[in-house]
Amino acid sequence: MKSLLIVAHGSRRSESNSEIAQVAARLADKARGEFDIVEHAFLELADPSIPEGIERCIARGATSVQVVPYFLARGTHVADDIPRQVAIKQATYPGMDIRITDYLGCAEELVDVLLRLAR
Amino acid sequence: MKSLLIVAHGSRRSESNSEIAQVAARLADKARGEFDIVEHAFLELADPSIPEGIERCIARGATSVQVVPYFLARGTHVADDIPRQVAIKQATYPGMDIRITDYLGCAEELVDVLLRLAR
Repeated sequence: MKSLLIVAHGSRRSESNSEIAQVAARLADKARGEFDIVEHAFLELADPSIPEGIERCIARGATSVQVVPYFLARGTHVADDIPRQVAIKQATYPGMDIRITDYLGCAEELVDVLLRLAR
Repeated sequence: MKSLLIVAHGSRRSESNSEIAQVAARLADKARGEFDIVEHAFLELADPSIPEGIERCIARGATSVQVVPYFLARGTHVADDIPRQVAIKQATYPGMDIRITDYLGCAEELVDVLLRLAR
């Protein structure tokens, strides 16, 4: 059973963190049949953490975990901090397929989304 | 002549700021004929500032400026800081149509983008 974990930065504002939970819920709807488990996690300032998010996926029966960084720029968070936290669970579950995808900001389609917002 | 100004947070890392300039360049290509002027600006930590970005649009002949927040969450930056900086130029040019659109994070299509990245 494939799982998908959206990872956002995390905020001191609970409303911002709730937005991520809502994105994950909509994604779960959309991904059904392809990714039957969708969870979310935060790099910092909010729970669940990235290792906790991966554990949640596995506890629900995941056989793979795709970690999708919900970040717009390739800063140190995307380049270093997320991989470091994911590596903790990759070490715990060496037989499990846990990998990090491209981050949101490198998706070409964002330009279409911006154009639609501007219209 | 309609213009579009993407506003990102801005970073101490010049690579992150360059990513925004690249998004603006791709957007300019895509928006041609609809928004003939596309500029970018930063809320903080990098240049041009939001008022400077609006001035650039106007200097290039813009008759309207659509300010699109390149932000994922509706935090104080989106709710307060961007409107405050835009208001400076709205006061300078009362006859000009300068408005702020929805921010990127509230676009429903982001879920499709995340799903595509996970595949």
